[in-house]
Amino acid sequence: MASLAEAEELDAHDPLASRRELFVGSDDPSIVAYLDGNSLGRPLRASATRLASFVPDAWGSRLIRGWDEEWFDLPLALGDRIGAVTLGAAPGQVAVGDSTTVLLYKLIRAAVDARPGRREIVVDTDNFPTDRYLVEGIAAERGLALRWIESDTRGGVTPLQLEAVLSDQTALVLLSHVAYRSGFLADVPALTTLAHGAGALVLWDVCHSVASVPIELDDWGVDIAVGCTYKYLNGGPGSPAFVYVRRDLHEQLVQPIQGWMGHAAPFEMGPGYAPAPGMRRFLSGTPSIVGMQALPDMVDLIDEVGMPAIRTKSETLTRFAIEAVDDWPASWGVEVATPREPGHRGSHVTIEHPAFERITAELWRRGVIPDFRAPRGMRVGLSPLSTSHVELFNGLEIVKQMLVRR
Amino acid sequence: MASLAEAEELDAHDPLASRRELFVGSDDPSIVAYLDGNSLGRPLRASATRLASFVPDAWGSRLIRGWDEEWFDLPLALGDRIGAVTLGAAPGQVAVGDSTTVLLYKLIRAAVDARPGRREIVVDTDNFPTDRYLVEGIAAERGLALRWIESDTRGGVTPLQLEAVLSDQTALVLLSHVAYRSGFLADVPALTTLAHGAGALVLWDVCHSVASVPIELDDWGVDIAVGCTYKYLNGGPGSPAFVYVRRDLHEQLVQPIQGWMGHAAPFEMGPGYAPAPGMRRFLSGTPSIVGMQALPDMVDLIDEVGMPAIRTKSETLTRFAIEAVDDWPASWGVEVATPREPGHRGSHVTIEHPAFERITAELWRRGVIPDFRAPRGMRVGLSPLSTSHVELFNGLEIVKQMLVRR
Repeated sequence: MASLAEAEELDAHDPLASRRELFVGSDDPSIVAYLDGNSLGRPLRASATRLASFVPDAWGSRLIRGWDEEWFDLPLALGDRIGAVTLGAAPGQVAVGDSTTVLLYKLIRAAVDARPGRREIVVDTDNFPTDRYLVEGIAAERGLALRWIESDTRGGVTPLQLEAVLSDQTALVLLSHVAYRSGFLADVPALTTLAHGAGALVLWDVCHSVASVPIELDDWGVDIAVGCTYKYLNGGPGSPAFVYVRRDLHEQLVQPIQGWMGHAAPFEMGPGYAPAPGMRRFLSGTPSIVGMQALPDMVDLIDEVGMPAIRTKSETLTRFAIEAVDDWPASWGVEVATPREPGHRGSHVTIEHPAFERITAELWRRGVIPDFRAPRGMRVGLSPLSTSHVELFNGLEIVKQMLVRR
Repeated sequence: MASLAEAEELDAHDPLASRRELFVGSDDPSIVAYLDGNSLGRPLRASATRLASFVPDAWGSRLIRGWDEEWFDLPLALGDRIGAVTLGAAPGQVAVGDSTTVLLYKLIRAAVDARPGRREIVVDTDNFPTDRYLVEGIAAERGLALRWIESDTRGGVTPLQLEAVLSDQTALVLLSHVAYRSGFLADVPALTTLAHGAGALVLWDVCHSVASVPIELDDWGVDIAVGCTYKYLNGGPGSPAFVYVRRDLHEQLVQPIQGWMGHAAPFEMGPGYAPAPGMRRFLSGTPSIVGMQALPDMVDLIDEVGMPAIRTKSETLTRFAIEAVDDWPASWGVEVATPREPGHRGSHVTIEHPAFERITAELWRRGVIPDFRAPRGMRVGLSPLSTSHVELFNGLEIVKQMLVRR
């Protein structure tokens, strides 16, 4: 039985337990359980300080000089740090800027143009909406076809499924590392190797995995990855996304949004676009420097504790969530829609019930904050650094009470 | 003679003078003269408070609920405010999000696709680099031709010049309201009417004019405008840009970056992209909410004082700058590259001299902060709400000293 005593015991033995206090709101009695860090991570207290001091100490005092002194290089410097700490990426392969959607657009376009003659993009039916909508539009504008993998909404894409749709027509395979709905954790090395075997490029959307699941892009031979920074990287609402491009692909990939920040000589402002060498070519306009301010402290914290410890805590949390739900009477009809094998899931657990749509607003008012995904999924997001087992238990107890009362 | 006494007199009679104290750094003795608000505006003190409180009071306490309560509508609500106060735009025609470059890309693509059969984009040789680089790329990918207007680097595009290149092949005219280099203020109504007469759409880049020059997009019949918020709107480094699309064009314009934030039903996450009605269709990914935090206070301040007062102050400042430079010995060879007629310029004055490239770094160290634009232009940016005439005079005195000593 998943009990409060067990939750307390797990917290007592959790080497990361003390880190929870580093986050704003961890002592706020009105928030019983924050279970949506997979949508928007909690801010570090250090980020409050950082944003407060940014105005007088950087923007307001360095003014335009800040661009020369720090901000111009920040998209690449911060990219390198995110790459080293969370992506298994050697320096010079990650840039920060734009939204996830815009980066995906630029890199999908660049990738399909780098495989001329191949007419297909492979994507799965349960990939995140932005990914699906983007490839629809790009396929239409580039005269390409989409090959859809029917993904299991309680699982994800398997090597067998991918193998069945790959061909010498496949230009690009677009997949998510952790499925936003089910939490399924894809086998990146196996799927990447299969795609490469067919001569295709692979773009991994790591939005729902980065900083909660160990990632080794260099070792896995990944071509391109795009991820967001406001979930487990706690960058704040709408903080800019990042893109990884394997070094030997830089010169081959030409992205379509030719802006001054991606130019080889941005301050010459001369005629004619010439892409910068390296990752800078994947930038377009002026990136959000204010939006990046919360990130360095979080990356430092992840670096300090290490991704293995984060993954261990994540597995303990997701296991405890599943155990707790398994204890509820079968007659209630709540179903776990996330893989039960810990190695096959990321850091959120989705449970399904027709009542969840109706009770989510009331849960939010009571300070229990998961999110709802139509038609009947409740996602219980478990941020390894800011979620405790007791918090999770207390949150699920209130979900349980509301199911009893309904 | 432009003297300190005259500067003091102008400040004494300046109805906006007291507003300068609202900005961070206005009392910082290490900053003698900030003359680059046309690149990065100074922060309001209110923005420091706003960013500091955003973490505990919004992000950290409302968490994901902030999206439902405020942030999801913020790109359009803030767009409406910017539109009403600075653009002469009725509600429902302005959205905030992405960088200027990305918004320009999306709207240029949408515009040329809305004029099928027409094969040309008109652009001028001294338009801002991003605008030029973007249309080069778009022309290549859409099989269009560019018709270049050779713009006067000490002036800008005239109706006669535009008339000479317009034809029944013109799909889109892309121009800047205020030229980033010379400060030339284009005649938007006349140029827009000409373009419309040829059946073309017009996209105005208002980056260097918005919030320093009165703009009446609705009255002028403008189709599309894109502008940035970190210059005279003081949004902070890399704060998101805005786009205006005239209401009757919304349904005709289809932008290519089909992301979930532009979907008609973003939270259904269903199959198939359907653009939202109205301005939301021009959004793509999750916009930077943190990056928008500094904007509402500045828009409120502009609303309070009104654009006419801002324009009057801007004209006084630019006139005083030109007078001061005109007092320098002709033998020094410093030339004013900005139109001398106040009605033909925006809010920065560009002066040219071969020594400016060399002395800019030393000026910055001494707290006099204009910017340099190759090959020999010094841009003296004059933010009407945060620049005083004495500040301008003191800054130009140091420029003068350095020219004497060189």
